[in-house]
Amino acid sequence: MTNLCNTLGIKYPIIQGGMAWIADATLAAAVSNAGGLGIIAAGNAPASWVRDQIRLAKTLTSKPFGVNIMLMSPHSAEIAKVVAEEKVAVVTTGAGDPSPYIENWAACGVKIIPVVASVAFAKRVAKKSVTAIIAEGSEAGGHIGDLTTMALVPQVVDAVNIPVIAAGGIGDGRAIAAAFMLGAAGVQVGTRFLVAKECNIHQNYKDKVIKANDISTIATGKRLGHPVRALKTPFSRNFFAKEYDSSVTNEELEALGAGALKLAVDGDEENGCFMAGQVAGLITKEQTAAEIIEEMFAQANAALYNRHTDKDNNAIHKILPHREPMLVVDEIQLQDGISVGKYTVRGSEFFLQGHFPGNPVVPGVILCEMMAQSSCLLVDWEENHTPYFTGLNKVRFKNKVLPGDTIIFKCELISKKQPFYFVKGSGYVGDTLCVSGELSFAVLKNSKISW
Amino acid sequence: MTNLCNTLGIKYPIIQGGMAWIADATLAAAVSNAGGLGIIAAGNAPASWVRDQIRLAKTLTSKPFGVNIMLMSPHSAEIAKVVAEEKVAVVTTGAGDPSPYIENWAACGVKIIPVVASVAFAKRVAKKSVTAIIAEGSEAGGHIGDLTTMALVPQVVDAVNIPVIAAGGIGDGRAIAAAFMLGAAGVQVGTRFLVAKECNIHQNYKDKVIKANDISTIATGKRLGHPVRALKTPFSRNFFAKEYDSSVTNEELEALGAGALKLAVDGDEENGCFMAGQVAGLITKEQTAAEIIEEMFAQANAALYNRHTDKDNNAIHKILPHREPMLVVDEIQLQDGISVGKYTVRGSEFFLQGHFPGNPVVPGVILCEMMAQSSCLLVDWEENHTPYFTGLNKVRFKNKVLPGDTIIFKCELISKKQPFYFVKGSGYVGDTLCVSGELSFAVLKNSKISW
Repeated sequence: MTNLCNTLGIKYPIIQGGMAWIADATLAAAVSNAGGLGIIAAGNAPASWVRDQIRLAKTLTSKPFGVNIMLMSPHSAEIAKVVAEEKVAVVTTGAGDPSPYIENWAACGVKIIPVVASVAFAKRVAKKSVTAIIAEGSEAGGHIGDLTTMALVPQVVDAVNIPVIAAGGIGDGRAIAAAFMLGAAGVQVGTRFLVAKECNIHQNYKDKVIKANDISTIATGKRLGHPVRALKTPFSRNFFAKEYDSSVTNEELEALGAGALKLAVDGDEENGCFMAGQVAGLITKEQTAAEIIEEMFAQANAALYNRHTDKDNNAIHKILPHREPMLVVDEIQLQDGISVGKYTVRGSEFFLQGHFPGNPVVPGVILCEMMAQSSCLLVDWEENHTPYFTGLNKVRFKNKVLPGDTIIFKCELISKKQPFYFVKGSGYVGDTLCVSGELSFAVLKNSKISW
Repeated sequence: MTNLCNTLGIKYPIIQGGMAWIADATLAAAVSNAGGLGIIAAGNAPASWVRDQIRLAKTLTSKPFGVNIMLMSPHSAEIAKVVAEEKVAVVTTGAGDPSPYIENWAACGVKIIPVVASVAFAKRVAKKSVTAIIAEGSEAGGHIGDLTTMALVPQVVDAVNIPVIAAGGIGDGRAIAAAFMLGAAGVQVGTRFLVAKECNIHQNYKDKVIKANDISTIATGKRLGHPVRALKTPFSRNFFAKEYDSSVTNEELEALGAGALKLAVDGDEENGCFMAGQVAGLITKEQTAAEIIEEMFAQANAALYNRHTDKDNNAIHKILPHREPMLVVDEIQLQDGISVGKYTVRGSEFFLQGHFPGNPVVPGVILCEMMAQSSCLLVDWEENHTPYFTGLNKVRFKNKVLPGDTIIFKCELISKKQPFYFVKGSGYVGDTLCVSGELSFAVLKNSKISW
């Protein structure tokens, strides 16, 4: 995760999908400015349009962005050259094998991330100079393969030695966390960015995505060997029916699809092909690209690290710089000069998983951390300052704290000599003393904030 | 997770898929004995067969097991009665709406877990007396819906207030961890149990699953409105081709499919329909049900909690009872009576996530834990004993430990008075002292091991 961000020079491991006719310089720059990797989709556009968009994006962001090349485009060879000449940071490729262009791009410092839908193709491109691979599942919008994200990603992860980025079905932060579990180093997101405020599609398109529910999409074109997922509309229902009518030739079917995406982008509800993924049902509103990305990663972190999903921790978030999973108190209050912290052991906490298997006991060091956090109302906070432990003295662990227990800490300030604070505290479960001790810490100015 | 296990009386939150013709008393009992919830699949079998299998399973396991009722079966009403009479612990239902039977089952103490493939149906059954819902994605084997697991599970989780069990695409522990991230409380697994040693299908079937790769399955029957996923074989390729031939009637297609699963179970490679999910490509060998379940959950825990996936921690596992994520040393050695521990900070550790956002510093309490673990070679271990902190004294934190740092702890035994040990330790990054202090702990006999 961190490595992919470092490699691509981005803050969040999220790549915007290369949506033809949709992903222009405005959207790409917005995503890049928000800390992801924005992508200009070349689609079937001529090379000159792509060059203009790249130059426009450069005026809109100083962050890295990329270009998606649809390799079946008649202009793909020319666009490949433009990308190299303009020294675009990253190229993602779809609908074909990018091998003929890889060496030239790599020589120009362009990072290459092909989109794959099977293990065999992943293995083939991973032998070349590519930076990562996007493994895209069939729940995605637009052109899709057969395998779903859940089935595809771990099989690709096992097959290659480069970072794998999961695509398809990534509608919110839960799916980002799930992708990490499957072994992905990052995600590619398309559908959710359809409703980005910076996305220049017709309002009809956005409204349809927002109104969609779980069963609002359909995959058509299976008979032609290149299925497309789109919202159920008169166009897609008609296409689906014709697929099973053998009096309709494949040529006629192909002709039916041509230009339909562009019509959707322009808002034609009757004849447009409104490409979207199965997660459309999760999308409820327009947001800026930055809001989308930040919300998704906050949700991913909550899924990955947050045992506090059962309640609102905003009050404590305002006081303490600690965040899940190292935020280990539920409540803190000042009572007659004593800082009182409270925590109920849920049983599912990370620290009980390994301490100890089959015998869950809150680790002593976590009790120390709880006691320290409980004392935070004794401190004079300043902005951009962080508290660090400087010492622990006379700490005694008297009784075990177990799942189901509620422990209450009472902490008193003994002395201060800024930036140092000396505190005495104790923690009780009911009337039973479990821990007591003396803590000292220093509240220091942050020397450096890095991501 | 814990709640679902408690509710169902099982150790691991895994339910075996209700595979018609395949899941008999032998397989169900093996899965239940291994800590999951085994399921006898009624399929199209008569009620008398189901009753016999239930009674046989009761002789093979004392653990709870279930029956899957395929509601389109002509025998389903009769089987529903048998299940209530035999007081089976759990019923899972597929291919229809179980509503007519729910009140009677609930009155008899049978827990009901319907399989759903869409949000609307999930909402409908969740209003009844059901214990949980299985949300099954289209990557599953056998009869499937349209939505993939990644897209379906979070949308169902948002729509209902009962536990959701993820099915489809759960081939190994990574997918279990991913399912938890999506909000699932457990998983249902079918394909992986096809190769359980206790699964009574023909060896040809098992061999095909083991040989399968990622693209070895195909979904047929979409035209009929009830698609089935199976391995690509002469039967399924033929069926797929005929679907797009409008001279073949729907009745002819239906007739083509009838009985084909049973032929596969009996090993007919030409005419059998070898149902399997897209995760078949992940399956490499026959194992007992217990081996499958334990391997999957070990892998899930590794994904969820283990930052040590990059190396083999077996040596330390033998010494310390701590497990990830509370196992926070990489190596421990005894050198001239001094216990030396070593840890390299990777940057992705759980404790850096929340301590502090944008400013990762190893928490002081984690340094104390590292120092304590580093001292473990000074202790005389006995079986069924666990070390607990009793005190911390004169602990001084002198310098921050940051991502990339390797910290080395040296710990010396000051005195012991069994069960108490008194240790002095210090931790250095290079020549810089980061922490020092005195630790005491007690090695106590385990009073109780609970799961």
